[in-house]
Amino acid sequence: MNDTRLLLALDFGGTKHTAALARAGARKWIDRRQQAAPPRADAAADVTIMRALARELLAAHPGRLAAIGVSFGGPVDFARGLVRLSHHVPGWENWPLRDQLHAEFGVPVSVDNDANLGALGEWRFGAGQVETRHVETQHAASLLYITVSTGVGGGWVLDGRIYHGAEGMAGEIGHTIVDPNGPECICGRRGCVEILACGPAIARRARERLEAEPSAGAHLRELIQNDLSALTAERVSRAALEGDALAEEVLLAAARDLGTGIGNALSLMNPQRVVLGGGVTRSGEAWWAEVRRAARANTLPEISVDIVPAALGDDAPLWGAVALAESLL
Amino acid sequence: MNDTRLLLALDFGGTKHTAALARAGARKWIDRRQQAAPPRADAAADVTIMRALARELLAAHPGRLAAIGVSFGGPVDFARGLVRLSHHVPGWENWPLRDQLHAEFGVPVSVDNDANLGALGEWRFGAGQVETRHVETQHAASLLYITVSTGVGGGWVLDGRIYHGAEGMAGEIGHTIVDPNGPECICGRRGCVEILACGPAIARRARERLEAEPSAGAHLRELIQNDLSALTAERVSRAALEGDALAEEVLLAAARDLGTGIGNALSLMNPQRVVLGGGVTRSGEAWWAEVRRAARANTLPEISVDIVPAALGDDAPLWGAVALAESLL
Repeated sequence: MNDTRLLLALDFGGTKHTAALARAGARKWIDRRQQAAPPRADAAADVTIMRALARELLAAHPGRLAAIGVSFGGPVDFARGLVRLSHHVPGWENWPLRDQLHAEFGVPVSVDNDANLGALGEWRFGAGQVETRHVETQHAASLLYITVSTGVGGGWVLDGRIYHGAEGMAGEIGHTIVDPNGPECICGRRGCVEILACGPAIARRARERLEAEPSAGAHLRELIQNDLSALTAERVSRAALEGDALAEEVLLAAARDLGTGIGNALSLMNPQRVVLGGGVTRSGEAWWAEVRRAARANTLPEISVDIVPAALGDDAPLWGAVALAESLL
Repeated sequence: MNDTRLLLALDFGGTKHTAALARAGARKWIDRRQQAAPPRADAAADVTIMRALARELLAAHPGRLAAIGVSFGGPVDFARGLVRLSHHVPGWENWPLRDQLHAEFGVPVSVDNDANLGALGEWRFGAGQVETRHVETQHAASLLYITVSTGVGGGWVLDGRIYHGAEGMAGEIGHTIVDPNGPECICGRRGCVEILACGPAIARRARERLEAEPSAGAHLRELIQNDLSALTAERVSRAALEGDALAEEVLLAAARDLGTGIGNALSLMNPQRVVLGGGVTRSGEAWWAEVRRAARANTLPEISVDIVPAALGDDAPLWGAVALAESLL
C-alpha cells in the first residue's frame, strides 16, 4: 500500500520534546526533530518549541498532512483534548492543546498521556504482537503496558483501543497496594507498587540496607565510592550483576513487589500480554525472572503469565501518537 | 415497542435450576419455573431437569422463541460454548451446552458463567444505570460487579459487553491479594480478598476472636448459644447490629479488606461504577460505610468511588442470561 498521507506525532516529554513524521500504514519515521525542554519553561514556551519543530518538519517534507497525534507527559482529559496539568511545568492547567493544534494545522488532532500512548504504541508497532497457532502474528486482544522508571505508570489497550476508564485514570498499577505495612508513598498510602519498585525505590532500599548493615554490600559501596547519595537503581543493578549479594537482594525484592502487583492485575483483568518498559527493566535477567515468578505465584493457575520487554524503548509514546493519528483517518 | 419474540433464560445454580421467559426489550418475566438441584446429580441429570423446565415453559406460552441465554455456576469457555467443569457436580467437564441446546431448540444460544452474567444483568436491568447531568439515566460505561457470599466472585462489563480476558478469567477480584501476611486460602496464596471478606471468612474471624478473648463478645456468644460451630456471617452481622463490639470489629475488618481490594481495582481500571451483591452485602450500613471508606482510602484522589448495592438479588445472573440472549438477536 502506498499511502501518501502524512501523520505528525508530537511528544511533550519531561526532559525533551520530539516531533516526528510517518506515513499512514508504515512503521518507519520519515524524519524527526528533537529539542531539550528548556529549564524554567512554562506551557506557552513548550508549545512554541513544539510548533517550531513541527513546522520545520512539514517544510522539509511537503505532502498531505492527514492527522496529528500528541503524547503528553502528564494527566490529559482525552475526551475534551485538554492537558489537565503538568507535574513539572507551570501553566498547563486545562490547556486546550487539541483545539489549538487543530486550529493551526487544520487537520484532526487527538491528545493522550504518555503511558496510554506507550501502551498503544507497543500494541500497534512493538511488543504487542503475539504469535498465534497459525504462522502469522496478530495484535494482543488485551495488553497492559507498564513503565518502570522514576515512577511506575501504566496503560491498557483492550480490543485495539486505549481503555481510559471513567475519569481517564485507568492503568494506575503504580498506586495499587501490595504491602499495607510498607513504606509511605507521596500518594498518601503505604506499600504501593511505585514506592517499592521504581528506580528511586531501589536506590532507597539499597541505602536503608547499607545503613543497617555496615559490613554488607562491599562491592556496591565501592561502586558508589562510599557515597550513599550516589546510589541509583542502575548502580544497584550493576553491582547485582557483578555479584554483590546485598544489591541482588534489594533488586529482587523490588522485582518481587512489582510482580506481586502484576499478579493482582492478571487476576482482575486476565490480559493476554503484559509489556514492561522504562529504565529499571534493563536490570538484567534475574530481575525479569523474579518479576515473572512473583506474578505467577500471585495469580490463579488458570491464568497465563505473558510478560515481555517493550520493543520501542523511549519511542513508545511517539509511536502511540502515530497510532492515535491513524485512528483519526 | 411490541416485540413478540421470546427469550429463554436458563440458570444452572449450585442449589437450584431456573428457567424463565421474557420478551425482547421488556423487563418483566412472562413466567418462570424452578427446581431444586437434586443431591448427587451429574451433568446429564441437571441438563434433563433444565430441558423439562424449558419445555414446560414454552408449552405454556406459545410464541416465537428467538434466542437462549444460559448462566452456569462454574467456569465456562464462552467462545466455544462449553462448560469447563463444575466444582460441585461431576460430569460437566467440557460439556458442549451451547451446541446441545442449539440442536434441540433451533435458535441461537450463548453460555457464560454466573458472575459475568450477574454483571451483565445488573448493567442492563439493575444497578448499572447511572444518572447523568441531564435528567435521563444511562448504563454505566464500565462496571465491576462483585458477589460476596460463600466466595467472592466478580465480572466486568465494559462498553456494554462482558469483558472476559484472554482465558475467560477476568474479574477474579476474590483472589487478588490485600495482605501478603494474611491467612492462607485454598487458592494457595495468602491474604486474598476471598479468604478475608467472604461469609465463611467472617465466621472464621469471629471464631478466632472468640477463642482468643474468652470474656469478649457476650451477645454474639448468646446468639450462637456458645456453639462456635453455629457461627455464620449472618449471625455475626446480627450481633453487630445489636451492639456486640467484637462482632462489629470482625465485620468491619472484613469490610475493610474488601474495600482495600476494590480500591486496587479502582486504581487499575477506574470503572464508573462498582455493584456489590450476595448475602454478605445485607450486613447493614456500617459494613457498607467501611467498604466505601477503605476503597476511598486505597485509591487515588482523582478517582471516583461509586459503590452501590445490586438491585436484582439472586436473579442477576438470570437477567444477565436475558441480556445475553438479546445480544444474539
